[in-house]
Amino acid sequence: RSKLRIGLIPADGIGREVIPAARTAIEALGSDIPKPEFTNLLAGFELFTRGGVALPEETVEALRESDCALFGSVSSPSKKVTGYSSPIVALRKILDLYANIRPVVSVADAPGEKSSVDLIVVRENTECLYVKQENLEFTENGKEARATRLITERASHRIGRMAFELALNRPRKHVTIIHKSNVLSVTDGLFRETVRAVPSTANGRYDGVTIAEQLVDSAVYRLFREPHIYDVMVAPNLYGDIISDAAAALVGSLGLVPSVNAGDNFVMGEPVHGSAPDIAGQGIANPIASIRSAALMLRHLGYHQPADRIDKAVDEVLREGQLLTPDLGGKSSTQEVTDAIVKRI
Amino acid sequence: RSKLRIGLIPADGIGREVIPAARTAIEALGSDIPKPEFTNLLAGFELFTRGGVALPEETVEALRESDCALFGSVSSPSKKVTGYSSPIVALRKILDLYANIRPVVSVADAPGEKSSVDLIVVRENTECLYVKQENLEFTENGKEARATRLITERASHRIGRMAFELALNRPRKHVTIIHKSNVLSVTDGLFRETVRAVPSTANGRYDGVTIAEQLVDSAVYRLFREPHIYDVMVAPNLYGDIISDAAAALVGSLGLVPSVNAGDNFVMGEPVHGSAPDIAGQGIANPIASIRSAALMLRHLGYHQPADRIDKAVDEVLREGQLLTPDLGGKSSTQEVTDAIVKRI
Ligand SMILES: CC(C)[C@H](C(=O)O)[C@@H](O)C(=O)O
Ligand SMILES: CC(C)[C@H](C(=O)O)[C@@H](O)C(=O)O
Repeated sequence: RSKLRIGLIPADGIGREVIPAARTAIEALGSDIPKPEFTNLLAGFELFTRGGVALPEETVEALRESDCALFGSVSSPSKKVTGYSSPIVALRKILDLYANIRPVVSVADAPGEKSSVDLIVVRENTECLYVKQENLEFTENGKEARATRLITERASHRIGRMAFELALNRPRKHVTIIHKSNVLSVTDGLFRETVRAVPSTANGRYDGVTIAEQLVDSAVYRLFREPHIYDVMVAPNLYGDIISDAAAALVGSLGLVPSVNAGDNFVMGEPVHGSAPDIAGQGIANPIASIRSAALMLRHLGYHQPADRIDKAVDEVLREGQLLTPDLGGKSSTQEVTDAIVKRI
Repeated sequence: RSKLRIGLIPADGIGREVIPAARTAIEALGSDIPKPEFTNLLAGFELFTRGGVALPEETVEALRESDCALFGSVSSPSKKVTGYSSPIVALRKILDLYANIRPVVSVADAPGEKSSVDLIVVRENTECLYVKQENLEFTENGKEARATRLITERASHRIGRMAFELALNRPRKHVTIIHKSNVLSVTDGLFRETVRAVPSTANGRYDGVTIAEQLVDSAVYRLFREPHIYDVMVAPNLYGDIISDAAAALVGSLGLVPSVNAGDNFVMGEPVHGSAPDIAGQGIANPIASIRSAALMLRHLGYHQPADRIDKAVDEVLREGQLLTPDLGGKSSTQEVTDAIVKRI
């Protein structure tokens, strides 16, 4: 690669404040990566309220021409809005970004931290209840709504493989399968059995990886009580959504937790936090989740050393504890924290 | 009532150790309640492995003849077992116990406690993915499984009403509706709108109750970070399952959290914890969740003062901190803790 084409989709709320911060961090890497070429792209609920389109065709086209992307966050309408559908959920499907990878790692002595945590949530990103096949009926007894939950062997296999691949590079090499097959014996049964069967299709490649499993309710409970038992957690879409937020709570703030949406040919970084309408526009959003998402995206593209530079700079700022945004109990602005990180990159 | 007919269904694992403890606590109330008449009833996965039936017809019949019941816990098979289906899920449906009420309250200074919590999870108990309508297809791309998630206006309304009723009796009178309508706009949209509309059908009865709402992922996050923001949380079945385990983690142990499954004509107490096969048979299971479930059941039947006696005895034992089971860091047995509580009743 002679250049790195990066699509930027700030979308709504604080997305517009933290994505520029992530851009600055990437720029600070200088010649350690191919020259970045940024394209600003539109999407989001605010865009929808202005023009009736939440995810313009041009945005999707531009992403297809890019090497990778960073997505900010979308606002959720406070009432049902006809015709609106979440652009992030759509993008994950359209670009077949089948894995949502969310590392949750505590930095020793960082403020607000409750326990020592070092895990990755590997969330299936294309199916489960997120297929959004829903219908509404009017019956004698009132309205009845139904949604379809889809679990396929194909998607379960590839997300399982992703989990095992990630485990290979970690000291503990341990995969925990999250499911609720005591109730959903068919759908979650298929997920569990397919993920369990991944090693048998891999010619001994995953021989060193140990496997455990946990029902989703007790997984959340144990995440709070004994987070150290987890290394790689692999989960269907909705459980993964909930578990990654639960894990984020352990490390002090959602404002710290990055993710990538990864497919076989494209990767899109995305902070786990939402658009935070309550603090949007005040310049006090924590840029760290987005900056770490940029690092994770680069790592996924094979740029490990540049990614390390970003992560180390972030860890230093957290450990020093002098410049922190309000979510971590500090008083610094998005800009001040970003500057401090960029200086250390 | 001249007597109180109580069905006891210990079911699997530690259920067989903690249900007898709850019985002892009820007996200790003496003439404060109508004379209790206990009937031991069978159900569970172990029963299924012996005779192919997880929930015998006689158990259901006997419950229909009872005033109330206590259910222990069921083991979940570690692989898919043809013909097996969870008896607790079935009982909730057969007896139309549409509300699962799970108060999570911290006892000041109790061991293992992380924050001060005083909330009730009101979980819809009959539908959502728990309708267990699942199917499996064999396609060119491998297996595909689908499950139906059902949300009805009728069930959402009655669980909403239950939440508002419970809120009326609490100092804060605050209801938080848990949903994920940013993704499931039809099913969770119906849940949210129906619960929100409950006060408008109640002639001003709920005028003093405030309403908030929260997406399930961020609800779990905030439950860990700021549990005090919650008073009554009302949720569809699966979210309620997860949230009540999450809340339990905040008060030191699942072994402390009681619940009742309540319908319009029957109430069944049930500890929130599972059958805990790892410690079953050792006599060290925490009896408190079951004893508190007995109190909650009595309260639901209108026996407030006897319920208070049990709850106060439990709180005393926890505060003293001398006699605790291993889940709370102690070394006492089920029997010792039960004796200590009974002595204080
Ligand atoms: C905004 C919402 C649709 C999204 C999701 O549920 O996937 C968010 O919670 C996330 O985790 O990325
Ligand atoms: C055992 C299982 C089917 C059950 C449930 O999911 O309802 C349990 O987790 C509970 O919370 O009572």
